[in-house]
Amino acid sequence: MTNYGIHLWSNGDFFIEEGFVKINYKSKPSLYEITQKIRDTGIRGPILLRFPHLIRKQIDSLFSEFNRAIKTFNYKGKFQAVFPLKVNQFPNFVTSLVDIGKQYNYGLEAGSKAELIIAMAFNNKNAPITVNGFKDKSMISLGFIARKMGFDTTLTIEGLNELENIIEAAKEYKDPIPNIGLRIRLHSSGIGIWAKSGGINSKFGLTSTELLEAVELLRKNSLLDKFTMIHFHIGSQIGEINPVKKALREAGNIYAELKKMGAKNLNNINLGGGLAVEYSQHENIHNRNYTLTEFTNDVVFLLKEIAVQKNVEEPNIFTESGRFIAASHAVLIAPVLELFSQEYTEKGLKLKKKNPPLVQELYDLYKSINPSNAIEYFHDSLDHMESLLTLFDLGYIDLQDRSNTEILVHLIIKKAIELTKDKDRYELKRIQDRVQERYLLNFSLFQSLPDFWGLKQRFPVMPLNKLDQNPTRSASLWDITCDSDGEIDFNIDYPLFLHDVDLSKEEYFLAFFLVGAYQEILGMKHNLFTHPTEVTVVFDEHGYKLENIVESQTILDILYDMDYDINEIQSRLKQYIAKSGCKNKEKILENLHLLLHENNYLKISPKKVAT
Amino acid sequence: MTNYGIHLWSNGDFFIEEGFVKINYKSKPSLYEITQKIRDTGIRGPILLRFPHLIRKQIDSLFSEFNRAIKTFNYKGKFQAVFPLKVNQFPNFVTSLVDIGKQYNYGLEAGSKAELIIAMAFNNKNAPITVNGFKDKSMISLGFIARKMGFDTTLTIEGLNELENIIEAAKEYKDPIPNIGLRIRLHSSGIGIWAKSGGINSKFGLTSTELLEAVELLRKNSLLDKFTMIHFHIGSQIGEINPVKKALREAGNIYAELKKMGAKNLNNINLGGGLAVEYSQHENIHNRNYTLTEFTNDVVFLLKEIAVQKNVEEPNIFTESGRFIAASHAVLIAPVLELFSQEYTEKGLKLKKKNPPLVQELYDLYKSINPSNAIEYFHDSLDHMESLLTLFDLGYIDLQDRSNTEILVHLIIKKAIELTKDKDRYELKRIQDRVQERYLLNFSLFQSLPDFWGLKQRFPVMPLNKLDQNPTRSASLWDITCDSDGEIDFNIDYPLFLHDVDLSKEEYFLAFFLVGAYQEILGMKHNLFTHPTEVTVVFDEHGYKLENIVESQTILDILYDMDYDINEIQSRLKQYIAKSGCKNKEKILENLHLLLHENNYLKISPKKVAT
Repeated sequence: MTNYGIHLWSNGDFFIEEGFVKINYKSKPSLYEITQKIRDTGIRGPILLRFPHLIRKQIDSLFSEFNRAIKTFNYKGKFQAVFPLKVNQFPNFVTSLVDIGKQYNYGLEAGSKAELIIAMAFNNKNAPITVNGFKDKSMISLGFIARKMGFDTTLTIEGLNELENIIEAAKEYKDPIPNIGLRIRLHSSGIGIWAKSGGINSKFGLTSTELLEAVELLRKNSLLDKFTMIHFHIGSQIGEINPVKKALREAGNIYAELKKMGAKNLNNINLGGGLAVEYSQHENIHNRNYTLTEFTNDVVFLLKEIAVQKNVEEPNIFTESGRFIAASHAVLIAPVLELFSQEYTEKGLKLKKKNPPLVQELYDLYKSINPSNAIEYFHDSLDHMESLLTLFDLGYIDLQDRSNTEILVHLIIKKAIELTKDKDRYELKRIQDRVQERYLLNFSLFQSLPDFWGLKQRFPVMPLNKLDQNPTRSASLWDITCDSDGEIDFNIDYPLFLHDVDLSKEEYFLAFFLVGAYQEILGMKHNLFTHPTEVTVVFDEHGYKLENIVESQTILDILYDMDYDINEIQSRLKQYIAKSGCKNKEKILENLHLLLHENNYLKISPKKVAT
Repeated sequence: MTNYGIHLWSNGDFFIEEGFVKINYKSKPSLYEITQKIRDTGIRGPILLRFPHLIRKQIDSLFSEFNRAIKTFNYKGKFQAVFPLKVNQFPNFVTSLVDIGKQYNYGLEAGSKAELIIAMAFNNKNAPITVNGFKDKSMISLGFIARKMGFDTTLTIEGLNELENIIEAAKEYKDPIPNIGLRIRLHSSGIGIWAKSGGINSKFGLTSTELLEAVELLRKNSLLDKFTMIHFHIGSQIGEINPVKKALREAGNIYAELKKMGAKNLNNINLGGGLAVEYSQHENIHNRNYTLTEFTNDVVFLLKEIAVQKNVEEPNIFTESGRFIAASHAVLIAPVLELFSQEYTEKGLKLKKKNPPLVQELYDLYKSINPSNAIEYFHDSLDHMESLLTLFDLGYIDLQDRSNTEILVHLIIKKAIELTKDKDRYELKRIQDRVQERYLLNFSLFQSLPDFWGLKQRFPVMPLNKLDQNPTRSASLWDITCDSDGEIDFNIDYPLFLHDVDLSKEEYFLAFFLVGAYQEILGMKHNLFTHPTEVTVVFDEHGYKLENIVESQTILDILYDMDYDINEIQSRLKQYIAKSGCKNKEKILENLHLLLHENNYLKISPKKVAT
């Protein structure tokens, strides 16, 4: 029995009870029950569940921890925050977020024109909007319009050229003019001054010399009173607290220096994002070495210290954490379609009267393996197999010999596992790794977990039920794309054990947790697998409701989005069927019509229950 | 002057003349001319150019090389091929491909239901269709319908379960029944038998034991005569020929063994894809160690050898190369928006009367640097900078001192480069790496070069013009996303040198080549940057024409695709503007309307020419 590290990554959001993983909120339903309820409506394929109460929980804890630290240290500045839209721009997330964030005056950050439009249409009245990233003139104009609409808008300058454009826009648009932030380039990236991200060679930010120039430019154009924020960002998913402290010390001093130079309205330090999420399922792996309490204490304490030392006003603290807010709200449910086992029994063996000597030897190993020689015989069997496969390639043995080889080696491995069960744990694990069961999941890794493909980021994964039974199979997970990268492998030291299920008798689902940040918008359409069906789960006094169900795109919609003429496709198909030798043309057309209006993921296989 | 390795990667498709990179076909226009022609229509942002003549070239060479080898070795089998749709499903590519492939009876491969629909609607009459990947019942039914429509359809079995579904479908649909292929699992993946991809633990394929079982199942159900193909795939972008030969030897023996077991209609060996593309821009890096001629010779020779040795019919050779066919047809043009230089002059220095001792020392280094001490002083300056930055963080020096530090160190680096120009090449390169110019490009790396993000695959890149001038700037390339991963870095050993351009006076574009395979469908919508504008360039006797122009999505379309209610967005924005204190509300609404109907990439900056 294993709890899949739920105490490490779930932050108390989920728990295991009576063999099911359940939501630790109100009526505490199981994910299995929710999944079945959705599938009862006929939906098939992967499902992305959204839990707005987890967005609320994260926003609450961000604000309450910062406010607690501010109180603790008797800090004079305020805490303010925005959500960076690039982390999740999907409407059913954004509208929940904005709704929940209202009480905190929580705002939005935009990094492109399209994101700024979302921010302007949905941000809470008077809540902050920060506009980051490289900007052209129309993006700057949009920022001015957002300010005029009443949003507390700050345009972050990424280069001096942008500042010149803002100065021009200010002449055109006049008051009210949005606030201006300067992105500072820090030398302290944690890994040394020449490190790529965040450091002096980083993609973003102004050097000290450029900062001085910017302040002069603002002063000359009577815009220095609009300069209210400095901004830095040392990277996403910061695992250690130390670089944060270094960066704060540097940024705090830059703030103080700029105040002294006359930037009298500068009163915000924007730390960007970076608050890490713990994705680990294993005791000895950790994605972060600090708690939110430590983080907030450090930020507030250090900024106070510098302000006191330099005798300047204590700045407001501003953050743009996205992963921390969004990751936990979404859970991906993937049905298991098939188990590809390496299950061989003696029955399959078809030994000849006269076998190749090495096959005979394998058979002898199998018959005489015992606890004292198990590991040795296991190694011998691998060696023989390697030789036998080479003999096959050279035409010396036939396919039956090769099959006997496969079966015997697997039987030896199985026996070796059995025989060494109470002994050498590591060698046992190594052997188990040889007989991993492949669980084929009805999802696309490229679409739903792109960070696994690109960054090898692992997400917590576990079955929805059977959690009161011992999972006995060392597993490897496959997606349904035609790509050999579409596999989540588990190694000997950090295996995933799953249950041995008979899919013709019962269903089995895996859930991937903490997928609410970045995974949706970075989703790739490999093999034309698109965004999974999404469902928002909302709790009330009576239990929960399933809302905002957006089914995964139909095949016709997918092709339409690729700019195919779907009428042409349909009429070609019809024509081909009409001209063909098909019987039951009506029936075939009808089936085809249905299929074109279904999503592209796999459906039930005939001999199985629905998957 | 550099030719950007064009002789290594271009395969003669492009050449440099009079300072421009030109297309080596018919009227030989320059990419610069084509780009300007497109931009003259008002299109802005990145542009993906498609060249159907390069699809034709690749298909021609694939078929002619295989047919030449077949003739050379007096081989009895035929050569056939399909294009795997997953490599590029975009309609303007697919329709060109199918059109060009007609003369060869070139077919299509599908790995999902949506891809199979594309194949059925557009494949050439009677040309082969192979259906790979995991299949549910409706995908198998589609395969039967494709067969009835007249396509030479083969369903590749990925597991025994699928075979059972096919047997059932055969009872339902009756004749004509599609051909059946069996995916074989090879042990020879080139890296050892336990290697992940292609090897015995690979995601796909039947073991020998399963093959024997499959043949029995087919025989029992009177379908053995439909078993016509074995299929394997040892991986994408195979760099070395050796694993191919090993795999062929193994597959050839499996083929011969299956023939002997009574699979009398088995007459195709499908090698899958894997034919590599040379992406390298540098003499001493190579992505493949073989030519197409060597590859085809090896395939034909080895299969003949095994067939003769085992006394079986020589099989038809079947391939599913995608990258080889599609990569070269597309070129991405990205306008340079800005140069972020580290250009400091002595004029910027604002030394105080009394400077911190280390700043004074930097100044002395700068004044006394000479050819004999240049490298040493350079190292000293970095050391001093590190100390001075720490002093800043601790509040001991001010922002002006910090700025002076930056300027002095950069001046020292510049002098050191100048002074060591004719000396130590490596140290010079190391220094140049410190003063890389950042070229901001109007594109998204996540959208247009996803394999760089995920696999660190590099694509050849070069400017469109100025190729008769010495590029003096060691460059690093940035995209416009708000992501520090959105950078293509170049290291000391393989730098990219670009030209020093004044973008207020002239335009400058970079082209990325060989982006026609996978990069489009894997494109991620990070920051909501979508597929670039695409244009097909078709040549005729009179020159060339620009066809099938598909502009990059407008902001409204992007939001619509995200499932936003765009009417709601527009009416909210209107209402906010109406209620705001804006002057010229009419004008603002009009500008907003225009912007919503433009794409999300950046446009002209006011002081510049159009970018």
